[in-house]
Amino acid sequence: MATPRESGLGGAESSPSTPLATPIATPVSTRSVKWEKDVEDAAGTLDRPLLHKRCTNTTSQMAVVGANTCPIESLDYEVVENEVYNQDWRSRGKLQIFQYQALKWALALFVGLVVALVGFFNNIAVENIAGFKLLLTSDPMLKDRYMMAFVVYIGCNTTLAAAAAALCAYIAPAAAGSGIPEVKAYLNGIDAHSILAPSTLLVKIFGSVLGVSAGFVLGKEGPMVHTGACVASFLGQGGSRKYGLTWNWIRYFKNDLDRRDLITCGAAAGVAAAFRAPVGGVLFALEEVTSWWRSVLLWRTFSTTAVVVMVLRGLISYCRGGHCGLFGKGGLIMFDLSSRQAAYTAKDLAAVMLLGILGGLLGALFNFFVDRILRVYSLLNEKGARSKIILTATISVITSCCTFGLPWLTSCTPCPPELAGKCPTIGRSGNFKNFQCPAGHYNALASLFFNTNDDAIRNLFSAGTDREFGAATLLTFFVTVYALGVLTYGVAVPSGLFIPVILAGASFGRLTGALLGSISGLDTGLFALLDAASFLGGTMRMTVSVCVILLELTNDLHLLPLIMLVLLIAKTVADCFNRGVYEQMVRMKGLPYLEVHAEPCMRSLVAGDVVSGPLITLSSVERVGTVVETLRQTGHNGFPVIEEPPLAAAPELCGLVLRSHLLVLLQGRTFTRGRAKAGAAEVFRKLAPFDFAKAGSGKGLKVEDLDLSEEEMDMFVDLHPITNRSPYTVVENMSLAKAAVLFRGLALRHMCVVSMTQRRPPVVGILTRHDFMPQYIRGLYPNTIPR
Amino acid sequence: MATPRESGLGGAESSPSTPLATPIATPVSTRSVKWEKDVEDAAGTLDRPLLHKRCTNTTSQMAVVGANTCPIESLDYEVVENEVYNQDWRSRGKLQIFQYQALKWALALFVGLVVALVGFFNNIAVENIAGFKLLLTSDPMLKDRYMMAFVVYIGCNTTLAAAAAALCAYIAPAAAGSGIPEVKAYLNGIDAHSILAPSTLLVKIFGSVLGVSAGFVLGKEGPMVHTGACVASFLGQGGSRKYGLTWNWIRYFKNDLDRRDLITCGAAAGVAAAFRAPVGGVLFALEEVTSWWRSVLLWRTFSTTAVVVMVLRGLISYCRGGHCGLFGKGGLIMFDLSSRQAAYTAKDLAAVMLLGILGGLLGALFNFFVDRILRVYSLLNEKGARSKIILTATISVITSCCTFGLPWLTSCTPCPPELAGKCPTIGRSGNFKNFQCPAGHYNALASLFFNTNDDAIRNLFSAGTDREFGAATLLTFFVTVYALGVLTYGVAVPSGLFIPVILAGASFGRLTGALLGSISGLDTGLFALLDAASFLGGTMRMTVSVCVILLELTNDLHLLPLIMLVLLIAKTVADCFNRGVYEQMVRMKGLPYLEVHAEPCMRSLVAGDVVSGPLITLSSVERVGTVVETLRQTGHNGFPVIEEPPLAAAPELCGLVLRSHLLVLLQGRTFTRGRAKAGAAEVFRKLAPFDFAKAGSGKGLKVEDLDLSEEEMDMFVDLHPITNRSPYTVVENMSLAKAAVLFRGLALRHMCVVSMTQRRPPVVGILTRHDFMPQYIRGLYPNTIPR
Repeated sequence: MATPRESGLGGAESSPSTPLATPIATPVSTRSVKWEKDVEDAAGTLDRPLLHKRCTNTTSQMAVVGANTCPIESLDYEVVENEVYNQDWRSRGKLQIFQYQALKWALALFVGLVVALVGFFNNIAVENIAGFKLLLTSDPMLKDRYMMAFVVYIGCNTTLAAAAAALCAYIAPAAAGSGIPEVKAYLNGIDAHSILAPSTLLVKIFGSVLGVSAGFVLGKEGPMVHTGACVASFLGQGGSRKYGLTWNWIRYFKNDLDRRDLITCGAAAGVAAAFRAPVGGVLFALEEVTSWWRSVLLWRTFSTTAVVVMVLRGLISYCRGGHCGLFGKGGLIMFDLSSRQAAYTAKDLAAVMLLGILGGLLGALFNFFVDRILRVYSLLNEKGARSKIILTATISVITSCCTFGLPWLTSCTPCPPELAGKCPTIGRSGNFKNFQCPAGHYNALASLFFNTNDDAIRNLFSAGTDREFGAATLLTFFVTVYALGVLTYGVAVPSGLFIPVILAGASFGRLTGALLGSISGLDTGLFALLDAASFLGGTMRMTVSVCVILLELTNDLHLLPLIMLVLLIAKTVADCFNRGVYEQMVRMKGLPYLEVHAEPCMRSLVAGDVVSGPLITLSSVERVGTVVETLRQTGHNGFPVIEEPPLAAAPELCGLVLRSHLLVLLQGRTFTRGRAKAGAAEVFRKLAPFDFAKAGSGKGLKVEDLDLSEEEMDMFVDLHPITNRSPYTVVENMSLAKAAVLFRGLALRHMCVVSMTQRRPPVVGILTRHDFMPQYIRGLYPNTIPR
Repeated sequence: MATPRESGLGGAESSPSTPLATPIATPVSTRSVKWEKDVEDAAGTLDRPLLHKRCTNTTSQMAVVGANTCPIESLDYEVVENEVYNQDWRSRGKLQIFQYQALKWALALFVGLVVALVGFFNNIAVENIAGFKLLLTSDPMLKDRYMMAFVVYIGCNTTLAAAAAALCAYIAPAAAGSGIPEVKAYLNGIDAHSILAPSTLLVKIFGSVLGVSAGFVLGKEGPMVHTGACVASFLGQGGSRKYGLTWNWIRYFKNDLDRRDLITCGAAAGVAAAFRAPVGGVLFALEEVTSWWRSVLLWRTFSTTAVVVMVLRGLISYCRGGHCGLFGKGGLIMFDLSSRQAAYTAKDLAAVMLLGILGGLLGALFNFFVDRILRVYSLLNEKGARSKIILTATISVITSCCTFGLPWLTSCTPCPPELAGKCPTIGRSGNFKNFQCPAGHYNALASLFFNTNDDAIRNLFSAGTDREFGAATLLTFFVTVYALGVLTYGVAVPSGLFIPVILAGASFGRLTGALLGSISGLDTGLFALLDAASFLGGTMRMTVSVCVILLELTNDLHLLPLIMLVLLIAKTVADCFNRGVYEQMVRMKGLPYLEVHAEPCMRSLVAGDVVSGPLITLSSVERVGTVVETLRQTGHNGFPVIEEPPLAAAPELCGLVLRSHLLVLLQGRTFTRGRAKAGAAEVFRKLAPFDFAKAGSGKGLKVEDLDLSEEEMDMFVDLHPITNRSPYTVVENMSLAKAAVLFRGLALRHMCVVSMTQRRPPVVGILTRHDFMPQYIRGLYPNTIPR
């Protein structure tokens, strides 16, 4: 085999300095994610002083001032079957197992309830703020004084935008952007700092309300997904120990696996709340967000989204009574358009295919532009919080100029005589906006721009209004929205991509429909819907979930075959050019995302090739001082435990211990004077299994918290009770591609590489997420992986 | 650790005689599946003569006469990365990779097309046969001569039923029953003999048409899933080598992994064709049928179902022109009931919850009865093909008596005056059947019984007909259909469970609706729909897919929250009593299904505990005679290859070879005189990578096909080129539960257990599917796993 194995085992010394990705501190994440080999695995060295950078403010070119540069942490989905776990597990009675199951369900349903309430609040707030803004600008005092109205409008929008940006910049930078890439990364096993923190949750909710109210071309749907995930994480945490609010019964959920499940439910609930699409929410979670799916999750996420929809339904019917403020209907976007024709001809199909191709091309182009603009913005945003606010305010002014100014410059259209009662509409949302026109006329562009985004979409989708918008109006709107969508996404407010993409798609679709009117007999409203689907397929590359969400929005299953067709074509076309927008962002943020498929070139490497540096192992009964020193000097999270000669005939692999468990054990002070097995019973006298449960992100014991005397440092500690006796292992000559399949398939954090021959130590290294990253491997073997 | 390890390693000698399950030869499978340890793994012994029973006609109490008792085979989803594979893979150019991808898609879409055509044929055939039957019995000659009509009716039905049973009994016993459990098992990695054979496909199609036409209380939906899987398997096979019909370009698909993907698409297409529910099809495949899901499959199955729906749509609109026979409307069941009220009160919700609880209880009871009746029928069916036909004919007569006789015994209802034109209907399908009533009257029971099942469901679901069916009528119908549904399922015709369950649920729902009329304001038609959902949830335990299928059938998304609620409650209630009906059947057939969760008690065992008997290994360069002898004496499918002292310093694990590859290699005759490495180049001079591709089920080389001379038997063969150098391994002291997670998670067939200490051989055994079966483990350690 032509594997570069010999050179590989020693050749990784330089790896910590190999940049894993080009981490770009986008304003979306507003953190420079720095992936450090030494923080993650146990293949470092004790000989040289290790730099253990924990949230240091590095001032690299890419770093964001004002935000911490924190190493991200991998999540561990392996069940750590050590004696503590087994003891705890055996001690659980039937009642406790039932309690655990019931609690799991109760939590999932509770997440649904809370997310529904948050989603509802979100909508009511946006509707009321937008309504007051509308009242303000159509005030009789401002009648015919458009310049004054313009200034008021810009002032309102900029204030709201700046407030949203300030929240994001000063309180929770992680709340900016869509949040879907981050949630996707979390569910792939990457815990980026404070991505699901309570502060992020609060800023996400209020920032999103302010951002949407400011009239930006952005949606509240993406942020709802992030909000859902945050709510789930918060509830799954079970309160705060610090304030004595810990719910003791939640301790069974203090592990990454249950947290992952709950956050998946939260993400699905977010989509369900945003679109009132319960099945769409489940499919969105399945198709786009999660990396590992368990069949039981289908059933649980479905229950969560069912709760969301039922609660929302109840609240909306409550709002119909006028209890929700001046303008609050609580209505999420929902297009009840079931009056369309069901039949279509071959010509219609050809037109639909054309839509798919155009949508795919424009979607891919959108992704390209978003990528570029984020790179530019990241340079601006890293200058500090104030710079973020200025950028946001600037984009807000541009947006206001477009939405108010463009309709101003266009001429008025006389109302169609048959719609005497309905046209024009003044002082409320709807079609045929009067704006600055004389009586009996309407301004087509204002019907689109001078509305909330939801209303604009509803206007574009509405059937039987083929002549309402002229081609010039639609073209102007499309170009503006497409450009503003790209420009807005990078600013420091919570911003979703669904709405801009649907808006651009719908206007482009209406335009195409108007042009193809002679060929196809389909309604232009239907064209708008289909092209919205096509744009969504082209940017997000989702198929089933987008299809179901659109069906749930429009409530017309007859459209299914056409939507499917257009989505399939758009995705296929766009896939020829670049990746989906979320995947692209995950990459751009430098998050070490594990792909489903191993790089093909990994086939020519073996596991031993990527294991680097001398390995740090612990003896099964180790001197306390050595353990403390090891923990202090390295940032590794897992250490192989070796059973050594007094206890075994020859050194053999006993298992793997985790840093967090070591810290708890040391804190418990179950030490012995000599090198002897203390046994699990001794540990349990001082510590409960709960003490070993995984603390929330950023919490938990640290080495610095240990306060051990000199005498204790010279004693011994028995690691057997906390050693995971069955770590997953691969032999060192295992193909790296197959090792990657194992690592990804079982969602591991550490994988021991065991020796093949008997003359070497039993473990030759540890593989972690880092070692499977193509960038890292390319650094080691530049010729192995092309590109 | 209190593991019974020492006793375990030697204690498994008796395991081959331990019955793994109580295999019941149900008429559904009509094969006694016999799982033999010695056929599956390599842990047998060469010392004692092994019984290699291959399709022998054992006459055990449970065996079915006339059907072969075949051992089933596991499927292998591991990528066998041996030199042959790597060579083949490296030699593929970009064009070939593109060709492979394009072909994969083309095949998936083609499967959709074919399944749509089959589904369409199915419907047209059923509609026409049922139409002629209706004409025959409402012939003017038979007017007022009900006895005569009764006899003609019974005669027709029994003939059709007997024909269907004869097809199943004589040609393809595997075609009887629903087929969903078998497809589920196949996608779990269990290849039962001839389950996807072309003969099964043909009998499934025609048997289903005959069975449904015979008026049985059974559906064509389950069989459509099996049909879809068979079509996919047939197309994926790429024709037959025997008749020179091999499509050479299909060779890339000759592996279990691609076959699995294609069959998943086929199953989804089957559901889509049966219900015209494309999203439901995808979700059904995901929720119920597959065991391993890859995200790419979502997108591919979705395309397949999109093709199905579009083709069906086209064909149905063609049929509207009257081109499809006298009665053929091509209309699959499809209830367009979008005229329901959207609002509901708390009282309605309480009523819906009650429906859910009742549905769950009755669904669980249904499963219990089905289980019992299948056990009884299996005893009858094993007496031979004739016995099967007689049983089927008997059930047919009972059914005919009920459907014709019961309406005969009931009194007539006067037509509501406002429906003068629509009531009664004579000589066609619809509500308000006239049957034997005087003019202006209708027979309520006949409107349900004397119709196709689809029409009966449509009648029950129809809104605004609260008074059409009296409580007595509904009760009679419910009891009859429930009982007939249970009685019919086990007979030797292709029979689905969807329709009986929906019928029973709908009638029970209408009954409940009539009783609760004073409390709830919901329409009784809506009650029928909700209770149908509840029964489906109670028997099949699916949630999302049933919900989406029902929504796609009724085309009303406003019902979603109610359907979700009722499904969640029904499933939860039913889960307290027994398993889902398909899972139950998989178990009853003794198929070694790998569950998602390892038995908790496996935690107290380690991998070494279940490995039994002396291991058979091969040397990396082995004497031809030894290899042939090994293959002859054992039925094992994988053999560890050991690199031995002349080639290595100490014996070490080189990898794993597969039986099929060994046979091809021997056939190729690349032998050397001495014990020397021949190298891959030598092999490739005589054999192409294609030769190693996995043949279809039951095909491929056998040991008996080898024709080697005495001289050749004394030569040596180099196994390196075909050895999978990276088999997945576990250390012998790995927790069995975690080994099971690995085995199931990566969909393996063989897993090597490696030695922990250096004084033993490098491999101590092989784990296969068999070793993870709770029954087997319970046999070894009766006290470990309770129950």
